[in-house]
Parts: sequence; C-alpha cells; structure tokens
Amino acid sequence: MSAASVSIVEVGPRDGFQPINQFIPTEQKAGLIDLLYDAGIRRMEATAFVSPRAVPQMADAPELLAYCATKPGLDVQVLVPSQRQAERALAADARHLAFVLSVSPKHNQSNVLRTPRESVEDFRAIVALLPEGTRIRLNLATSFDCPFDGPVDPVATLDIIGALAAVSAEAEFCLCDTTGRVTPDKVGDLFQRARRLFPQIRQWAFHGHDTYGLGVANALAAFNAGVAVIDSSFGGLGGCPFAPGATGNVATEDLVWTFGKMGISTGIDLSRLLEAAGSAATLPGACVGGRVRDALTAQARREETA
Amino acid sequence: MSAASVSIVEVGPRDGFQPINQFIPTEQKAGLIDLLYDAGIRRMEATAFVSPRAVPQMADAPELLAYCATKPGLDVQVLVPSQRQAERALAADARHLAFVLSVSPKHNQSNVLRTPRESVEDFRAIVALLPEGTRIRLNLATSFDCPFDGPVDPVATLDIIGALAAVSAEAEFCLCDTTGRVTPDKVGDLFQRARRLFPQIRQWAFHGHDTYGLGVANALAAFNAGVAVIDSSFGGLGGCPFAPGATGNVATEDLVWTFGKMGISTGIDLSRLLEAAGSAATLPGACVGGRVRDALTAQARREETA
Repeated sequence: MSAASVSIVEVGPRDGFQPINQFIPTEQKAGLIDLLYDAGIRRMEATAFVSPRAVPQMADAPELLAYCATKPGLDVQVLVPSQRQAERALAADARHLAFVLSVSPKHNQSNVLRTPRESVEDFRAIVALLPEGTRIRLNLATSFDCPFDGPVDPVATLDIIGALAAVSAEAEFCLCDTTGRVTPDKVGDLFQRARRLFPQIRQWAFHGHDTYGLGVANALAAFNAGVAVIDSSFGGLGGCPFAPGATGNVATEDLVWTFGKMGISTGIDLSRLLEAAGSAATLPGACVGGRVRDALTAQARREETA
Repeated sequence: MSAASVSIVEVGPRDGFQPINQFIPTEQKAGLIDLLYDAGIRRMEATAFVSPRAVPQMADAPELLAYCATKPGLDVQVLVPSQRQAERALAADARHLAFVLSVSPKHNQSNVLRTPRESVEDFRAIVALLPEGTRIRLNLATSFDCPFDGPVDPVATLDIIGALAAVSAEAEFCLCDTTGRVTPDKVGDLFQRARRLFPQIRQWAFHGHDTYGLGVANALAAFNAGVAVIDSSFGGLGGCPFAPGATGNVATEDLVWTFGKMGISTGIDLSRLLEAAGSAATLPGACVGGRVRDALTAQARREETA
C-alpha cells in the first residue's frame, strides 16, 4: 500500500497567509515562495482567487500567480470558491485550480453561501470552463468533522465524492480534516472505502490540521491507505491554538522529517526548508506550529555546548 | 490486533518531576497525585529510588510511596536503577518495581555505569530478591534510538529482550523511545517482531516522548501492534524543547483525548485530567507540552464568545 515517495503540496502561501490580518507585501510573499522553491518544493497552493474585500491578504493573487509561473517545474494551484473566481483565475493564466466545497451543509453555507449540491453544480460549470491541459483539484472541507456539527457521517462524504466523480473523475480529490479532530483510524478507513467505491478516481490527497497534535499521525494514516499527495504548511502556519477559531496546518518540516526517517522521499531539503519556516515565524501576526523545528534547534544547541 | 481498552501508566510524578530542578514539596506532589487519582488514573510511576544526591527531586521517594499506598486500587510502580536501590524500594514496601536499563551501551554507561549485560545480571539479582506477589517491569531505554549513537539496531534490542526473558518472562517489557526520534513504522515493526519471537512474554508496554511531535502517533502504532499498556505524562511534563537535552513525554491528555475519539476506553475523565495538567503547568520550572489542552482551551473560548 505504501510508496517510496510522497508528494508534498505546500499550502502555506494560501492557507497559512490567509488568516494573517496584516497584509504581507507581495515581494515578501514572493521571497518566501523563493525559499520554499529553493528547498525543493515543487507543488504549491500559492494563493486564492477570492473577494479582495472579504480576504484582503489574497488581493495580490494575479501578481503572485504570475511570479510563480516564472519558476521552472513548479506546479502552482490556486484556490477558487466559485465559478466567478475560477473565471478570474483562468483569465490570470492559472493552469491548476483547487475548487473548495464543504461536505457539511452548515460549513458550506458559512463559507460559500451554497448547499453542497449547489457547489457540485458549480464544479460542473467550472469543469466546463477549463481549457485543455488545465488541471483541477477538489478540496473537500469537513470531510471528517465540522466545526459547527462535529463528526461528519462518512456516508455523506462518500455521497458528495460520488456526485463530484460523476461530473469529473479526472480531478484530484483531496479530503480535508478542517478541524484537526479526526483520528488516524478514521482517516485510513474513509480513504480505503473511498478508493474501493470509486476506482475511477485515480488521484487522492489529504489535507490535515495539527490542532490536536494528530497532523502527522493522520497524514501517515492517509499515506498508509495509499494516498501519495499530502498538504502541509511551512512553519505550521495557518492559525494559532490561542486564537478563537484558528487552527494550524500540519507543518511541512514535520512531514519532511518524519517521511525522511521512514525512508520515504519527499524531494525536499530539510535544512533549507527550516530556513523558510524560520522566516515564516518572523511574519508579523503569524502563529507557527509544528515540533521538529524546535526539537532540531534544541539538538543543535546541545551539540554546540557539548 | 486492537482492544477496546488501553491501560495508561501515568509517569509524570517520576519522569516529569525528575528534570525539574527546584524541589517540589512532598505535599504538593501528593496533591497532584490526588488530582490524577481523582481523574481515574489507576497506574502510576510515582517516584524513583535513586541516589538523593544525584537526583534531589526524588529524595522523598519513601514518603510518596507510603502516601500512594493509601489510595485504593492504585497500582504504584517505582523506578530502580540498581540492586541496591531495589532493596531500598522493597524495604519501603514497594509492590511494583520498574527496573531501568538501556539497550545502547553508551547510554547505559552514562545512566548507570554498567554494560547492558551487567544490567541483565542486576535484573537477575533483583528478581531473586522479589517477595511473593511483587511485580516487576523492565524499562528498556533506547530501544529504538540513542541520544549518543542514533538509531539502535532492532537486533540489539531483541537480543537484550531475549537475555532478560531468560531471567524472567513474568516481567512487563516496556520498550522506550528515549529520544522521541523513532517513527511509527519502526515502533510497530519492533513490537511485532518481539511478540513473535518471545511468545512467553505476555506483558508489553510502550514509553514514548513527543519531542518531534510523534508521541501520539507512536503510541497508536504500539497499540495497533497489540500493546495495551502505554506510558504518558500529564501536561506533557518531562522536558522542554528549548532546554538542551530535555525532551517531553507524550501528554496523558493527548492520549486520553485520542483514544476516546477512537472509542477505546482509558477509564480516565478528560476534564478532571485537564485540571491536573493545568496544575502541573504552574509548577516552577516545569515545561509542559502536548496539544489537546491548548486546543480545548481555545475551543472553550470560542464557545464563550459565540
């Protein structure tokens, strides 16, 4: 069931920057993207095409997308929550969209003012827009647990997957643990059921948060269930356990360290990645997470004093 | 392979208090033990019989042991690193010893000035001392990884287990990840090999640290490999990632929360345990860890402000 390599999707520039209130200048974002690229990151959710009034941090999406397009071999996906924003992204030459919808009706309503079935129809409309060679991923928020309604029935998630697969099984299906409250057993079970039920879907991904400390454990459970694409955020950006409602992504460096120890290649240079994560930690308003960065810093200090 | 319940061994009063420099008054230790007992903890490594000069924090071992003996149904194990200290513990009416030795020769030398084989002989001498009805556990430090020498060859660990089992297979064998650097795949593999090779050993346990964020993931890997006894420390006491050489135990509340979500009973009341962990966090010099405490605090604040 396991592979000798795993593909990390760095989502820090989108999921990590988005909750930071103070606008990060576009040049500074580009500098951080440089560091990530230099560390070996080759797939990135670099920005989101969303209302600049609702999310001012993402207002520079077209400029950032254009910047990322100059980097050879970088697969840049951009988040879009609606047909209108997908049109904006495609007009800005996006080649890889990530359409987000929630399995939980309440969460989808709160996020995009749609029922899940209405979002499936949005997906159909977006697929119809895609020029030849443009790829699409589906970010299925609250695939396991909802901040409003708690645990999500796996049958509801499988139902939505089925409806989306009927529109296009060519998409990459990313099941997202939005709250960080799912446990590895349920991650493994749902991916196994989904893969069995929908063999026509060939690309699966997992997106998890580390709020309750299970970010890496859940990523490994997904990997062991045959999922070879995992989202993460450098420095564990994406929230703060002390801030109401905010929850951090699993840290890219925690995944790279763990997979490395397991002999599973990520193609990412840990020490250069740690430089990028260190820079992320200095962003005003950033709340970083993860454990490996602190542990390796402590280890380096020990070696200096030994 | 899995069970519907797991036995948590609370090691905070020993492994957690030991690295705290400032002496915690015995009454305060007893008060924290009360909170743990009231939360449902029924097995505890409550103290260590070690040289009071070397480890002043453990100087009140006999008093604490006597105090714990007054609590109905509490299984109290005390750490002993040598025959002499085992004699002291037995003289103080200890009914459950935990003998510690390291698989790594360098670590064992540093800890107890013995080769691993000399420690096996110490174990033989201690077993010969045990009165009827007294139980013994083996804490095999550096079963996976050594702070001095890095990864430990599983064959070396299996060799020592075999030598110890030849002395007594009645002991509980606890494989300890001393550095926090082992990954879940290796935890599962080693327990599976050990259980297959030594069917005469009926009691296995796992002790892990959360330094690199894998404390819960490794505990789950042990559990999934058939290990139903897991060590942990309330508040994640046991070290600080910013202090040279110190590494924290996996937090009891992280395990209780995770196992609870998985429908696996620990017999422990999470909210009362969180009170105990909150008290631990106020100990002068304590470095706490874990994630669930912060996450649930943030959640409670959200609900208050909602």
